[in-house]
Amino acid sequence: MHVLVSYDIVDNKTRTRVMKHLKNYGQRVQLSCYECDLDESMYQQMKEGVEQLIDKKMDSVRYYRLCKGCLHNVIICGWGEVREDEGFEII
Amino acid sequence: MHVLVSYDIVDNKTRTRVMKHLKNYGQRVQLSCYECDLDESMYQQMKEGVEQLIDKKMDSVRYYRLCKGCLHNVIICGWGEVREDEGFEII
Repeated sequence: MHVLVSYDIVDNKTRTRVMKHLKNYGQRVQLSCYECDLDESMYQQMKEGVEQLIDKKMDSVRYYRLCKGCLHNVIICGWGEVREDEGFEII
Repeated sequence: MHVLVSYDIVDNKTRTRVMKHLKNYGQRVQLSCYECDLDESMYQQMKEGVEQLIDKKMDSVRYYRLCKGCLHNVIICGWGEVREDEGFEII
């Protein structure tokens, strides 16, 4: 499955730890967004790792699972890496 | 249609302008993410507005169209508003 992870993390050290953690699971596509191709257990493992790192009152992490159809409709304006499995339109 | 807009914008004034623009189309769910419910023409109008504001070499805007299924699978860890049309799991 394909997952977009988007986060707002206040503390710099926490943010760095989360970034290092997410790097094991996917590709950074924007400053605070990663796109990951994962099976269910890796997905759970990723989430559990993030959950242990963040301050749930201060920080926010959103996970968007993207089906093939939605993945194919990703549109990028400006710089941005297009992943081979994404349909894309650069405007 | 439901669209997640995620952006990295370098210049503060440009970022503020884009935020004001996006506010007309959706709800801010994280510092640099908006979720919007739009028809096709509003979606095109939103994108064209963003495109006129940003520096395409410096800035990045990604649009993720989310089908009902994907929208239903949004997961939030930490603070975060759950939109009524989202299935949700807060962990």
